[in-house]
Amino acid sequence: MTIEIRRFSSQQADFAQQMEGLLSWESVSDAAVQKTVADIIYDIRTRGDEALIEFTNKFDRMEVSSMAELELNQQQLQEALDGLPADRREALLVAAERVRAYHEKQKQDSWSYTEADGTMLGQKVTPMDRVGLYVPGGKAAYPSSVLMNAIPAHVAGVQEIIMVVPTPGGELNQLVLAAAAAAGVSRVFTVGGAQAVAALAYGTDTVPQVDKIVGPGNIYVATAKRAVFGQVGIDMIAGPSEILVVCDGKTDPDWIAMDLFSQAEHDEDAQSILVSTDADYLDAVKASIDKLLPTMERQDIIRTSLTERGALILAKDKDDAIAIANRIAPEHLELSVEDPESWLPTIRHAGAIFMGRYTAEALGDYCAGPNHVLPTSGTARFSSPLGVYDFQKRSSLIMCSADGASELGKTASVLARGEFLTAHARSAEYRIKD
Amino acid sequence: MTIEIRRFSSQQADFAQQMEGLLSWESVSDAAVQKTVADIIYDIRTRGDEALIEFTNKFDRMEVSSMAELELNQQQLQEALDGLPADRREALLVAAERVRAYHEKQKQDSWSYTEADGTMLGQKVTPMDRVGLYVPGGKAAYPSSVLMNAIPAHVAGVQEIIMVVPTPGGELNQLVLAAAAAAGVSRVFTVGGAQAVAALAYGTDTVPQVDKIVGPGNIYVATAKRAVFGQVGIDMIAGPSEILVVCDGKTDPDWIAMDLFSQAEHDEDAQSILVSTDADYLDAVKASIDKLLPTMERQDIIRTSLTERGALILAKDKDDAIAIANRIAPEHLELSVEDPESWLPTIRHAGAIFMGRYTAEALGDYCAGPNHVLPTSGTARFSSPLGVYDFQKRSSLIMCSADGASELGKTASVLARGEFLTAHARSAEYRIKD
Repeated sequence: MTIEIRRFSSQQADFAQQMEGLLSWESVSDAAVQKTVADIIYDIRTRGDEALIEFTNKFDRMEVSSMAELELNQQQLQEALDGLPADRREALLVAAERVRAYHEKQKQDSWSYTEADGTMLGQKVTPMDRVGLYVPGGKAAYPSSVLMNAIPAHVAGVQEIIMVVPTPGGELNQLVLAAAAAAGVSRVFTVGGAQAVAALAYGTDTVPQVDKIVGPGNIYVATAKRAVFGQVGIDMIAGPSEILVVCDGKTDPDWIAMDLFSQAEHDEDAQSILVSTDADYLDAVKASIDKLLPTMERQDIIRTSLTERGALILAKDKDDAIAIANRIAPEHLELSVEDPESWLPTIRHAGAIFMGRYTAEALGDYCAGPNHVLPTSGTARFSSPLGVYDFQKRSSLIMCSADGASELGKTASVLARGEFLTAHARSAEYRIKD
Repeated sequence: MTIEIRRFSSQQADFAQQMEGLLSWESVSDAAVQKTVADIIYDIRTRGDEALIEFTNKFDRMEVSSMAELELNQQQLQEALDGLPADRREALLVAAERVRAYHEKQKQDSWSYTEADGTMLGQKVTPMDRVGLYVPGGKAAYPSSVLMNAIPAHVAGVQEIIMVVPTPGGELNQLVLAAAAAAGVSRVFTVGGAQAVAALAYGTDTVPQVDKIVGPGNIYVATAKRAVFGQVGIDMIAGPSEILVVCDGKTDPDWIAMDLFSQAEHDEDAQSILVSTDADYLDAVKASIDKLLPTMERQDIIRTSLTERGALILAKDKDDAIAIANRIAPEHLELSVEDPESWLPTIRHAGAIFMGRYTAEALGDYCAGPNHVLPTSGTARFSSPLGVYDFQKRSSLIMCSADGASELGKTASVLARGEFLTAHARSAEYRIKD
């Protein structure tokens, strides 16, 4: 049994339309979802913990009567870590340590310089005080995601990391709790959905108000994050995960088939695309896909994903393959080619670039070090992997000497009067020396 | 005639409520505005230039029949610059050069490191390809704002900077066009409102699609920016401008009164707050306010702003004053004190910090160098001045050696199986050496 996957060439007449059809994606947050979310946010803002308990009982099939039942303590987190099988605990700690080491390189420092007249200019960099980390419940509860979201905040110097994770029916995911312990999470509340986002954004008697909310979630969570943006900071709102593999035709086709599967298995909307300049190689990978698919635990999801959103694309040459990659601006770009470093200068847009045949994207998902929270759906055109910089903020510094203020005052005065802002002008003019 | 300004002390019983009342601000984007904006965006997406011309004729009282009439050329910008009175042109160019010099320090470079087993990890930094700059028309059309938004993009290496500015009734602001020339803007369309935002976000036959939209605007513009967030990047949605002056009581009270006026004159919603540990000094500044206000061109706006949103606050001591500053997380913080450097380490949240008696905030608005686009309404808790970093993006780099992939594969395999993602596990396992 073979699987249907879209296949086309950059040389065919309708290539642009084919690409548009392939890449079109719009997250649907309809009016009903927006209304529900707005109502939930209003309730949390006005009734706080009481509303949070009600929504949690209703949506997560819980029966609690106090917020104390919706908070885990540090001991529970540590016990989850201690209770893991040794190989899992070891793997989690290795991953946490590598992620921490990479993110240490992202820390930015304050800087300043002094001009000839003694005026000092600079930028002071400080961590946020407190951030919220949303962790989805159920099947999408990934411990790796806890590491990837919490460790950059920790490295940035954030003092309080507040995690929320829904526990539908009361079921706790021990690996997620263990990851929270490994990553240095401060407090954990077992709440989720728009109500958890609202509680973090506005605070309740029990849940502290945070400065920024990060982490993936369903359409209610994404809609709530968009709604509270401005009250708090948020990270990018993620679409389905995607990979673009560019291969010169010399990597084992089984490897590439499995790399494509590793995206496709996330969910039916995930997208796996292979570009090659070698038509025979596309055939070979297709044969590997047909051969390996029946052996996969999540073959139904993979089949739907590949059929609905996958593609095998024939490129004319290396430059053409690079143009396709830049057009897609993929979340994950695997350059499974000889000498990937020679490709790098021409790659303009990608969340993460996996270079060479050995660098499976899955290594980056877990433990290579870089973050696995990456811009999706072409947003790599303007956004970046989650990083330490997302948890630091900057303040401009200006300290004028008397001479500096006098000189700058003259320029400011002219410009302010050009804008008819005379208080600005006069404020500057007070500092001009006679 | 004296003016009413709220006055209170941090020692009074209702201090927390006073502060909450003082700082409460919520931009209202009601359902009607949202519906209007959603309809405009839909029209621009489906009918492109035709809709853009219709909306522009309707909202900006224009009578054009083609997009060619809604674009300015580089010669028009240069002529605007050349045609300025010499002192204004000189001031604009001095300001542009200082802003450019400061922002050069913000440029971030790519980095990488190689581990013992040959695995390379890093981060590639690239500019965005194309950004949109919204400039308000009418009374809020500030040339300084063009410099502050366009220059960081230019310094980042953005190749195309597309400016939109409405020209109600067809009236062009020559200083704004001159600033566009000085700042290196690539193209200018005389369109505005939600329709301009939609055109930049989705592109039309004439207006190129951009990767990010920055710049201030009215409630329709802000609502449109929020709606297209995700399709493109956006900057923070700004609230009214604010200043917090902290003074030790030894700066000329006229200077401080004028510094407060310079915020208040922006608009009725602007906020000016003075904190001092010296009650007599608060009286002195109040007297200066009463004395100077009748001499101000924009005294009506200033009076409303100070009465509705201003405050004179008595702090107990230096630590208390700092706590108030951190509570407010002001857009502009003026430390009009002796030895402001000793205050700096304890200031956690502020958009820009103006240090010392000579550093009037107005100097920073125009020409000191740092950006005047700053986080408002307490968002300095989690966001930063507009900067070069807002126009750069990062891609993670991972290039595993054969040995590195083998070792990392073992860890990834264990974690992937813990998440029941077996394609991830098998993809990693292919790279483990036998």
